[in-house]
Amino acid sequence: MSSMTTIALDAMGSDHAPRAEVEGAILAAREYGIAVQLVGIESAVRQELARHRHENLPVDVVPAAEVVMMTDSPSHAFRRKKDSSLHVAARLVRDGKADALVSAGNTGAVMTVSRFVIGTLPSVDRPALAWAFPNMKEKVSVMLDVGANVDSKPEHLEQFAVMGDIYYRAIWGVKKPRIALLSIGEEEVKGNELTREAALRIKQSQLNFAGNVEGRDLFRGNVDVIVCDGFIGNIALKLSEGLAEHISGMLKKAIKSSLTSQIGYALSKKAFDALRRKTDYSEYGGAPLLGIRGITIIGHGRSNANAVKNAMRVASELCRSRVNEKIEQELSAAAALPARG
Amino acid sequence: MSSMTTIALDAMGSDHAPRAEVEGAILAAREYGIAVQLVGIESAVRQELARHRHENLPVDVVPAAEVVMMTDSPSHAFRRKKDSSLHVAARLVRDGKADALVSAGNTGAVMTVSRFVIGTLPSVDRPALAWAFPNMKEKVSVMLDVGANVDSKPEHLEQFAVMGDIYYRAIWGVKKPRIALLSIGEEEVKGNELTREAALRIKQSQLNFAGNVEGRDLFRGNVDVIVCDGFIGNIALKLSEGLAEHISGMLKKAIKSSLTSQIGYALSKKAFDALRRKTDYSEYGGAPLLGIRGITIIGHGRSNANAVKNAMRVASELCRSRVNEKIEQELSAAAALPARG
Repeated sequence: MSSMTTIALDAMGSDHAPRAEVEGAILAAREYGIAVQLVGIESAVRQELARHRHENLPVDVVPAAEVVMMTDSPSHAFRRKKDSSLHVAARLVRDGKADALVSAGNTGAVMTVSRFVIGTLPSVDRPALAWAFPNMKEKVSVMLDVGANVDSKPEHLEQFAVMGDIYYRAIWGVKKPRIALLSIGEEEVKGNELTREAALRIKQSQLNFAGNVEGRDLFRGNVDVIVCDGFIGNIALKLSEGLAEHISGMLKKAIKSSLTSQIGYALSKKAFDALRRKTDYSEYGGAPLLGIRGITIIGHGRSNANAVKNAMRVASELCRSRVNEKIEQELSAAAALPARG
Repeated sequence: MSSMTTIALDAMGSDHAPRAEVEGAILAAREYGIAVQLVGIESAVRQELARHRHENLPVDVVPAAEVVMMTDSPSHAFRRKKDSSLHVAARLVRDGKADALVSAGNTGAVMTVSRFVIGTLPSVDRPALAWAFPNMKEKVSVMLDVGANVDSKPEHLEQFAVMGDIYYRAIWGVKKPRIALLSIGEEEVKGNELTREAALRIKQSQLNFAGNVEGRDLFRGNVDVIVCDGFIGNIALKLSEGLAEHISGMLKKAIKSSLTSQIGYALSKKAFDALRRKTDYSEYGGAPLLGIRGITIIGHGRSNANAVKNAMRVASELCRSRVNEKIEQELSAAAALPARG
């Protein structure tokens, strides 16, 4: 590692805050040499910290006076909770005292505060939230945007494609990720106005464009990066979470009822645990909000220490691979090209 | 049953055509007293028919010269295959010789031919394809539109809501189905331009409007009818099919690997069969294309005889409950109201 990454960690974000955050910070500092600024209610954070040996680790506490709740609207969190751990952590990034913000808190609030406190990169019209998930080929696919933007225009989807490409290269080391548009048919003429126009633009770019994929192909692993408007991306993400829960529940019930309950439980539990590990977002390190002037990673509210640690690892990798520099370079180069028909 | 329903069945539609269709027709005629016009390549249909006892059943064969393939584009099927079983069956409905069209063929082609050969109801701007699926409460939810229309306007979503309400009442006998809009947050201010505007319109209607549901709520069963644009509905439908396959595959593998393979296979097979039965579209009788001047039901390409039979049962119930009359009444009454702000 060339130089140490410093991460401002919102210690009050997750459902298990600050316990999961503090433990995750210790793990990240120990395993990856990441410097952590634990931002939160000081007494609560210090109490958790006292449970761990951390004397030689680069972990500091930065006090904040209040906490953004999951029920707070993004605009309320942004306008009315300026002393919250989220705001304080975002200001550390804005002021150059930290390289990245990690929070497992209210997704809408983290996006809004990141966008307006830290700011977006000059060439980025709209930041995009990227979701990484395991596909049928036992690799990872990334979908973006999954919730930062609605009513996107074709040029926004093109920017999402550029940012997704850079993110995928940085984290999964693939040279020319296959980029696709989420649509309703594989043929180019299929889709809606937005995807048809976006396809024309992306086809003319330097990206490795694989055309359209349908909903059924999302998990097939034939492409690496799937681009869509945030409205549909958010519905697809949440639908996937809900359906996974639904199917697991039905199967668990069916398996248990087909065996004597004790054996059935023991046998099926192992399989369901394996599935949970495989689909566990915590292994994938949260969702980066790409296009911010700094790195923001949003963890799941249910994050445990392992999820927090992995989110910090991904944040550090994004810093070290200079994704923001690359995004800015590629988008400003694209903007300098003559207008395309 | 007041009078016999006559159904024009495209005998060449499914992957197992005409075997599944002929057997389904016999079952529907025998169990429900439905009169069937089996439309297809005469020799092939008669050969299948010879495998069954059908002398006293109201099943006739109507010859057609060609077949629409799954790979045909909808416009090719519509313009160039006028002697296909699909066209011939649609003309039987158009000419009043049959009450309904049932096909398990190329979805796009069935929609296009239905729309332009049979025609839409006078007050309907755009027909909508409705998908019925089992929810976590072990009831059925319906989502529409799942693929007939892209770039819908708010007034189209309002029409989908009215048609979904009438369909749900007709088939599941619920007096005031709970209608929701698929969006990205439960609050009214959340969503995109389309859903916010559509919510205002539906709220002012006579419908039992339950507000927005998110992707994660799709399977929860808290609402009966979920309304969305066909682009997102189609992606949600296909994503659900793909993910169900993906999760079942992962779990099957995990269960088998956690037991000696013979026992594992025997135990898990029973559970997976139970799941398949539970989520089997064939029990739900295919997807109606609502808003057509006649009834069109589109079955899954993988339809077996049971699926064909159930699609015919649903077609017959929709005829007998006069859904089209009700759609026309409610939509023309809504159109007669003064413009709403």
